[in-house]
Amino acid sequence: MSDSLEPTLIAWLKSRESLDPEKIPVGIGDDAAVLRVPPGEELVVTTDAIADGTDFHLGIGDVAEIGRKAIAVNLSDIAAMGAKPLAAFVSLMLPRDRPFELAQKLYSGMFPILQKYDCALAGGDTNTWDGKLSISVTILGTVPAGKAWLRSGASPGDVLLVTGQFGGSIVGHHLNFQPRLEEAAWLQWRAQVKAAMDVSDGLALDASRMAEASGCGIELDLTKIPIRGEAKLLDDGKSPLEHALGDGEDFELLLAVDEAEAAQLLDDGRRHFSLTRIGRFVAERGLWGVDKNGRRPLAPTGYQHGANS
Amino acid sequence: MSDSLEPTLIAWLKSRESLDPEKIPVGIGDDAAVLRVPPGEELVVTTDAIADGTDFHLGIGDVAEIGRKAIAVNLSDIAAMGAKPLAAFVSLMLPRDRPFELAQKLYSGMFPILQKYDCALAGGDTNTWDGKLSISVTILGTVPAGKAWLRSGASPGDVLLVTGQFGGSIVGHHLNFQPRLEEAAWLQWRAQVKAAMDVSDGLALDASRMAEASGCGIELDLTKIPIRGEAKLLDDGKSPLEHALGDGEDFELLLAVDEAEAAQLLDDGRRHFSLTRIGRFVAERGLWGVDKNGRRPLAPTGYQHGANS
Repeated sequence: MSDSLEPTLIAWLKSRESLDPEKIPVGIGDDAAVLRVPPGEELVVTTDAIADGTDFHLGIGDVAEIGRKAIAVNLSDIAAMGAKPLAAFVSLMLPRDRPFELAQKLYSGMFPILQKYDCALAGGDTNTWDGKLSISVTILGTVPAGKAWLRSGASPGDVLLVTGQFGGSIVGHHLNFQPRLEEAAWLQWRAQVKAAMDVSDGLALDASRMAEASGCGIELDLTKIPIRGEAKLLDDGKSPLEHALGDGEDFELLLAVDEAEAAQLLDDGRRHFSLTRIGRFVAERGLWGVDKNGRRPLAPTGYQHGANS
Repeated sequence: MSDSLEPTLIAWLKSRESLDPEKIPVGIGDDAAVLRVPPGEELVVTTDAIADGTDFHLGIGDVAEIGRKAIAVNLSDIAAMGAKPLAAFVSLMLPRDRPFELAQKLYSGMFPILQKYDCALAGGDTNTWDGKLSISVTILGTVPAGKAWLRSGASPGDVLLVTGQFGGSIVGHHLNFQPRLEEAAWLQWRAQVKAAMDVSDGLALDASRMAEASGCGIELDLTKIPIRGEAKLLDDGKSPLEHALGDGEDFELLLAVDEAEAAQLLDDGRRHFSLTRIGRFVAERGLWGVDKNGRRPLAPTGYQHGANS
């Protein structure tokens, strides 16, 4: 309930936010927000929580960056559906030590990225407790009806394209990455994307999940993976390629397109962002790596979330 | 992201849930869910979190009841907007001690109430951490365009009606209450409701908030407040009326209607639920109590949430 936000915080948030009444007739401060979905559009909804000790460490680094990340990881999911953001809802569990100041710092990191991607803060819930900070965010987006990019739409023979670079995200990228919303909007307009997802847990693991959801396998060309500079600097015994395949938190897009579409996209001079062909979907289930030594099964390295971790 | 749900839990949830593909073409398991809002309807969105130590005590009582409550408090907000539920998104922060079993018990309390009110479980996020249980739920509902009940629509002269009874919710009602969705649907269809909200923090406090949002005052007839039986059993020095005014977690509806509408509703033989006239909105700002001793300012008793608590 928005009414459980501390009144000073509600007043402060309302003073910061200007809502478009055509899209969001009612925002923060009532029992619920009221939103309008444009005719011909479907709604896309994602929820993702980040928590102290798991996804960040409160007390290390800038609190605003934590707020930014809580929003950015959800916007990355909206991009991965080929959708554009509409509104965000933020649920905070705040430790009791100066919670209002903490909330303000978190929101001060959220506002710029919300504004940049035209996403309204339309509601939320703020609580204090005898526990650590956790931030649960739900973001709603819209997509032309029938045009949402699922993980399950790839077929054998399709090409795997990726935006950006991979590996070494721990150095800073996991906090300052740009969700690929502009890239998604460009591709939604110009291309026939058959399947997509964003890389949160690791390129190898997420690529294998996408293949599995599509009922096929996937073959990565290990000589073509774009590796982030930071992955080459880490001196921990792992190769840069291993970092690129398994680190996760790259928040780049995996895109399945057919051969003709791939050729056209890679050749398109109007494209203003990096797009790299790194593999192809195959009939044989599983994850495969190809390099100068040939083809072999590849371990789906990455971060395994969840209840058994 | 739904993919951060532990795979076994995702599989279990998917096996439990049958989605209507006309309303929810994509549910759990992709980067986001895809939903359709019927033409002519607006979307209503509410987020509310409950946490161990604040809203319940894990280890005392039935875990399924906690899961039920996390859903029910959000459904109550949907009812307070005059909307009907569409889909729920559940974000869990689970302590590391047998989290999968805990998640299953929570969901086993969620499914029956979601099903009863035709609300799909369409996504979520499950995390384990070195912290206590918290459950953040976002529920989306739909309402005919322009028909959402806001808190701000009451005017001086309007009558305050309430569903149900008040006080003593701590004895059990705070866990087993029915969100007033059926009542809201009946009223949305037959009546002209000018303003509404649900009572979560306390009848006196929430009534005063509704008046404030509407730019007027409110006068409660203290001889007419329907008092729940449990409020009369509590032996703690407070009167049953004090419990009814200040306990909160009643999750009943406050409804502002004009005089003619109130008369018609109270007289309507087709009405199958309790509706009581307990006061009226007045031009003079503030909260007022009236009884046989006359009219006096009333303290807005209730639970003050938030960052300064």
